[in-house]
Amino acid sequence: MAQKPSIPKGTRDFGPIEMGRRNYIFDTIKSIFRKYGYSPIETPSMENLSTLLGKYGDEGDKLLFKILNSGEAFSSIEIAPGEGATASNAISLKVCEKGLRYDLTVPFARYVVQHRADIAFPFKRYQIQPVWRADRPQKGRYREFYQCDVDVIGSKSLLNELELLQIVNDVFTALGIRVQVKINNRKILSGLAEVSGEAERLTDITVAIDKIDKIGLDAVKQELESKGLSRQSIECIEPVLTLNGTNSEKIAKMRDILSTSETGMKGLDEIEELCRLAKAAKVDSSLEIDLSLARGLNYYTGAIFEVKALDHQIGSICGGGRYDDLTGIFGLPDTSGVGISFGADRIYDVLVALEKFPTESETAVEYLFANMGGDGELEYILPIADELRKRGHSVQIFPEKSKLKKQFEYADKVGVRKVVIAGEDEIAANEVTIKDLEKSEQTRIRLSELFG
Amino acid sequence: MAQKPSIPKGTRDFGPIEMGRRNYIFDTIKSIFRKYGYSPIETPSMENLSTLLGKYGDEGDKLLFKILNSGEAFSSIEIAPGEGATASNAISLKVCEKGLRYDLTVPFARYVVQHRADIAFPFKRYQIQPVWRADRPQKGRYREFYQCDVDVIGSKSLLNELELLQIVNDVFTALGIRVQVKINNRKILSGLAEVSGEAERLTDITVAIDKIDKIGLDAVKQELESKGLSRQSIECIEPVLTLNGTNSEKIAKMRDILSTSETGMKGLDEIEELCRLAKAAKVDSSLEIDLSLARGLNYYTGAIFEVKALDHQIGSICGGGRYDDLTGIFGLPDTSGVGISFGADRIYDVLVALEKFPTESETAVEYLFANMGGDGELEYILPIADELRKRGHSVQIFPEKSKLKKQFEYADKVGVRKVVIAGEDEIAANEVTIKDLEKSEQTRIRLSELFG
Repeated sequence: MAQKPSIPKGTRDFGPIEMGRRNYIFDTIKSIFRKYGYSPIETPSMENLSTLLGKYGDEGDKLLFKILNSGEAFSSIEIAPGEGATASNAISLKVCEKGLRYDLTVPFARYVVQHRADIAFPFKRYQIQPVWRADRPQKGRYREFYQCDVDVIGSKSLLNELELLQIVNDVFTALGIRVQVKINNRKILSGLAEVSGEAERLTDITVAIDKIDKIGLDAVKQELESKGLSRQSIECIEPVLTLNGTNSEKIAKMRDILSTSETGMKGLDEIEELCRLAKAAKVDSSLEIDLSLARGLNYYTGAIFEVKALDHQIGSICGGGRYDDLTGIFGLPDTSGVGISFGADRIYDVLVALEKFPTESETAVEYLFANMGGDGELEYILPIADELRKRGHSVQIFPEKSKLKKQFEYADKVGVRKVVIAGEDEIAANEVTIKDLEKSEQTRIRLSELFG
Repeated sequence: MAQKPSIPKGTRDFGPIEMGRRNYIFDTIKSIFRKYGYSPIETPSMENLSTLLGKYGDEGDKLLFKILNSGEAFSSIEIAPGEGATASNAISLKVCEKGLRYDLTVPFARYVVQHRADIAFPFKRYQIQPVWRADRPQKGRYREFYQCDVDVIGSKSLLNELELLQIVNDVFTALGIRVQVKINNRKILSGLAEVSGEAERLTDITVAIDKIDKIGLDAVKQELESKGLSRQSIECIEPVLTLNGTNSEKIAKMRDILSTSETGMKGLDEIEELCRLAKAAKVDSSLEIDLSLARGLNYYTGAIFEVKALDHQIGSICGGGRYDDLTGIFGLPDTSGVGISFGADRIYDVLVALEKFPTESETAVEYLFANMGGDGELEYILPIADELRKRGHSVQIFPEKSKLKKQFEYADKVGVRKVVIAGEDEIAANEVTIKDLEKSEQTRIRLSELFG
């Protein structure tokens, strides 16, 4: 009656090697967040559905994992024949009050509003926790995955945008990944919609031009036409899509195009100032203004960021932007913030592809003491192992008395660096024999040497 | 239309101070796990209900949080009037295939069986992740909380039990909590049931005597009687409940009582050997044999551990034991393991009560650069802040140009240690003014001194 063990599709187990690598990524990122004065918070895995619903669009609502109310959830529920087929969602809301969080942004907004009396603004927080989405699982897309968010809320200063660029720069330098950082500003896109005479079609425009990398210029123009934009409007937008040159050249050209839009000019001022600050702070990742960048997210109101690896194609590995009214829905209006999110799974894949993981992050054990079951062996090695641990080493004693061959095989599998052997001779001489598995060397040394 | 933000009952937000303290606990524990050669793993938050159901008893099954199937969960469901009241649970299993994990032990057993081909045994793993229980929330009992488990599986050697005692000792020494470690052995309890002529009532006996600390000797005897034990059997068990003396004295007395039970004598051999090993390894936490200790868990087959804080009453803060057949249900029989679990929430409360949290763990920011908006101020301080970060310091620049008073208030709230001011004079002299908020001192120093 044994069950064949399995896990839900779209979820993963992480073994010791994967954990070592994932922790290396998270620890690197966290240490840099902390250097910039960001503090960690954590929110519950489950939120009230009223907190989550309606925040991610209709598609997002469908992808929420709902949690069945505890106790007798169905005690007063009736479903007439045929009703389930048409009213499945309405029924689910009668028996589910809670859902698993879909991202870290909405819970963060909820947190800020709920705890605003205790928070010193500007509030700089980071949050590294799993999120859940009932998406169709496929390569690189999981139903449970970690997000890694860093945000400042309660300050409109562009110094915050600069700081995020510095963090991006430091993180990818530390990880050894060369990146290109693309920046844009939502106000420039708004200005563009204005001057093209289609201000009310801003979303259609940004959704369409965001796709230019994937589908090309002609398809974007076709999409704009299908959304009802006039030929004239499209002609006004087109030069922006094919804009090239240095960042300063792009800004200069855009100043011509957007000269009649106050919002557009404000966006250009902001992006120009951010470039100036990045230079002053010596951010050395290549920074490219890309006016097609919109990241599909309606809540961005200012800067928009996206980071791609230069040496491995995998889509964006980090992105974010400024939002002016994320907390409004929970009752705290006019609280501007800016944040970015690191894609841990993709960063993992890039580091694997580029072979940039340090080998130490995968090694669990430095010393394995062999167990030969000799007289007085345990009494001899227990204090030695203890002393090595006190000095910061990771030390394991093979628990079973068994053949040395078996113990060496184990050492090899687990990634032990040195096997320590204490036979009768060694014990009598206050020594140990050390087999270095990396160098394939065997030496017999005094204990004082071992601790030295 | 703003929502009043709230979180589900029994769940918690953790702010920066709580996170600093929780991370201090987890980091301390993890660093000791690693020194003993344990590797981290993580399993998905959601498991198939077939993995979870039936593993925690009927009561546990009721406390599982079930996750509604994604998509149209109710499309082919009908519930006749009255049916929901009697068949709520059966209906829930039609619309829920997954549940949130209830502990880390069952997912670990599932993991070991599923990945056995890739695992080198004995497998030493630790796992620190949240678990969920639909318990009635009350003080100190949450619906989402972290467990912190360490186990060795695939070895019957008592060296593993010793190692867990060493880990307990090291963890609580590092945290500054004086503890008493109670040990027992399930085989001794089995032997006791045997010699009292009630072998088949082992569970009733252990459940009853486990309560002696809470309800007293008479109530335990009454419970045993109510379970159908004869007066004679209870008379045989009674001396064990009132046993006192040193560990050696207890073992000697028990050898008399259990002399006819092979299992009981084996349990005494094991506990005696473990005490001997603990002495050889110089485990200095006080180790007390407590024969009433059963920890209510039916899957323990050998050693049982429980740890209590000596200087703060809060119940057990760590516990565990040996299990011989945890993986059997998933198709891997005869794989003995032993493990313990640290209660992070209670340890947190003990550290608060005893004021043992280091203050550094709560401080997020070392240097806050004031922002006075002066000419050339940013260009001057950005590289200085950068240099300090490169040297490992945590540094923040106040993002808004604003009154110094406001910036000092912020520094105070966030727990900044030093505020750095660069006015016109300082910039001209290549200096900065440092206000040390802890020492209430103000000094003006050269940059070389700052970096020194």
